Amino acid sequence: MRRIYLITYDVSHPKRLRQTFKCLKNWGDHLQFSVFECHLTPTDLIRCKAELAEIIHHDEDQVLVVDLGSVENRPDDLVQAIGKPYSDMAAPCIVV
Amino acid sequence: MRRIYLITYDVSHPKRLRQTFKCLKNWGDHLQFSVFECHLTPTDLIRCKAELAEIIHHDEDQVLVVDLGSVENRPDDLVQAIGKPYSDMAAPCIVV
Repeated sequence: MRRIYLITYDVSHPKRLRQTFKCLKNWGDHLQFSVFECHLTPTDLIRCKAELAEIIHHDEDQVLVVDLGSVENRPDDLVQAIGKPYSDMAAPCIVV
Repeated sequence: MRRIYLITYDVSHPKRLRQTFKCLKNWGDHLQFSVFECHLTPTDLIRCKAELAEIIHHDEDQVLVVDLGSVENRPDDLVQAIGKPYSDMAAPCIVV
């Protein structure tokens, strides 16, 4: 069962910043500058965190992994946007 | 009853960026560059969002308000950190 995770990061070195971004692009959706939304199984989560732990400098950088609950029980108002719209990863993307 | 909100923002103009930061400092705890954790009542949330809506440019900027649940029922593993530690706002701060 997949859970929704918001993953935010403060990474000081440009190279590690690029690597963190590239890593998370493989796991989820880029919402804001250093904010990703990822829908992960328990195994995905372990692998994603292990990859990030390899990339960052543990005394200088920080990644926060925030558990927003299961994908199935996602409340409609889980993420509210002010300004530019937010598009829910799971929301059907209708191409017209 | 207070709920936990993670508030993240992408604000392009330096002046609006400072104003957004100053506004959120009044409402919560600065976790990362553009990430705050706020414990808000329903009324607080309305006022906080109204203040932010006044500050940002609605076509260029975005604030995301993510509902992490009630303060009382906060799971211990709600926010996990990799690298520099995360300190829970509600956690008792023991000064020795």
